[in-house]
Amino acid sequence: MVRKYKHDDITSYALGATLVMELMSRRPNAVRNIYISPKSDVTAVTDLAERLGINVVESEKAFNILSPKGNCFVIAEFDKFASHISGDKHHVVLVNPSDSGNLGTIMRNVAAFEHYDLAVIRPSVDPFDPKTVRASMGAVFGINFEMFDSFDDYRNKFGEHAVVPFMLGGKPLSEYNFDGAKNYALVFGNEATGLDRDFFKYGAVEIEQSKNVDSLNLSVAASIGMYVAAHAADKIDKR
Amino acid sequence: MVRKYKHDDITSYALGATLVMELMSRRPNAVRNIYISPKSDVTAVTDLAERLGINVVESEKAFNILSPKGNCFVIAEFDKFASHISGDKHHVVLVNPSDSGNLGTIMRNVAAFEHYDLAVIRPSVDPFDPKTVRASMGAVFGINFEMFDSFDDYRNKFGEHAVVPFMLGGKPLSEYNFDGAKNYALVFGNEATGLDRDFFKYGAVEIEQSKNVDSLNLSVAASIGMYVAAHAADKIDKR
Repeated sequence: MVRKYKHDDITSYALGATLVMELMSRRPNAVRNIYISPKSDVTAVTDLAERLGINVVESEKAFNILSPKGNCFVIAEFDKFASHISGDKHHVVLVNPSDSGNLGTIMRNVAAFEHYDLAVIRPSVDPFDPKTVRASMGAVFGINFEMFDSFDDYRNKFGEHAVVPFMLGGKPLSEYNFDGAKNYALVFGNEATGLDRDFFKYGAVEIEQSKNVDSLNLSVAASIGMYVAAHAADKIDKR
Repeated sequence: MVRKYKHDDITSYALGATLVMELMSRRPNAVRNIYISPKSDVTAVTDLAERLGINVVESEKAFNILSPKGNCFVIAEFDKFASHISGDKHHVVLVNPSDSGNLGTIMRNVAAFEHYDLAVIRPSVDPFDPKTVRASMGAVFGINFEMFDSFDDYRNKFGEHAVVPFMLGGKPLSEYNFDGAKNYALVFGNEATGLDRDFFKYGAVEIEQSKNVDSLNLSVAASIGMYVAAHAADKIDKR
């Protein structure tokens, strides 16, 4: 039965019709159950669930537990899954991200800039927390992402990527010469503490900004980095 | 006395020590009262308030009304103020923004990229809503921003700025030739509806992205636009 989400659970929840549809489209085999509120009219969801052979449960209780505010009428319970990144793409590497909103937003932006996969170095906020899932707007079900126990573990697997750490005190991003023939690993630190000074050895860059603010929000910094690197390296899809 | 915030009120509230300190530093004359919780130890705030001659009230009730979750120990009540933008800077123009989180985040990014002022076309989410104030991390007190009743009103005042609307179907942003001698107005539409097709007459640009996602979040799109335009026009502070 449904219960409040805990990090150690093997299943998590996607709340709301948009996320549930995205989940069923991208990861149909991960879906265990779909709960619909007796008040709801979610035939698009129930029709697709029926075609996919997914169990649909009408239950008020699930919503009391998972969505006490009452603005959600469909919930999917899904199995957490392993996802792997590819050596053929650029990588965004998040070292110890601590905010589910940032991680989810960055997942969404990785989906938007399709030349990237996402690596996450533990300890990290939970990528399957319903809050992350919501902030990703379902991108968690579509992108490639992989969790690593340390940056060294990541490097052992992907040693060929050119590492570009984003750090205050680095070279201005606009002066960095990205090379279209290389794959890059754009590395971003924790929201509060940034990256360890050791990362300077890779040749750090900084997004030029005023001294009026502490630093750019992590998801904003990551999107600017992704856009600029993909363009400078002339790899982005021009449609 | 303190009451729940309403859009028509002439005062609003800044919740938490960080925002209150930013408010006192940037807009000391706008502060009416500071409420501190009897449980709190906020001497940095009360010392500065005393130096500025600002009234400090110890009150449990203010927190019950404005911060029922109880994770905030200092609140400032401030007079809403008029702020004006300058013709000498680039402008970010938000047409009918509807989300306080987006508006606040864009305010924060305008503070980060110091070559911009912010114009907002009504109808708009309230720039003084405590949620906007919080999302701005206090930038609302430091940046120049101005509200206009229509885009025409904005153009009547700032007709010299080169208008660059961000629209799906526009020319790729990376191919747009920004001219360092010009001031630009980067125009972004409402989160759900975008800009009216009329704006194509100015020569629209599009941030190149995958078809996997509907569109970039407004605050992400605005930050990428601000960074790229300021750099392409070679106006950004290289420190």
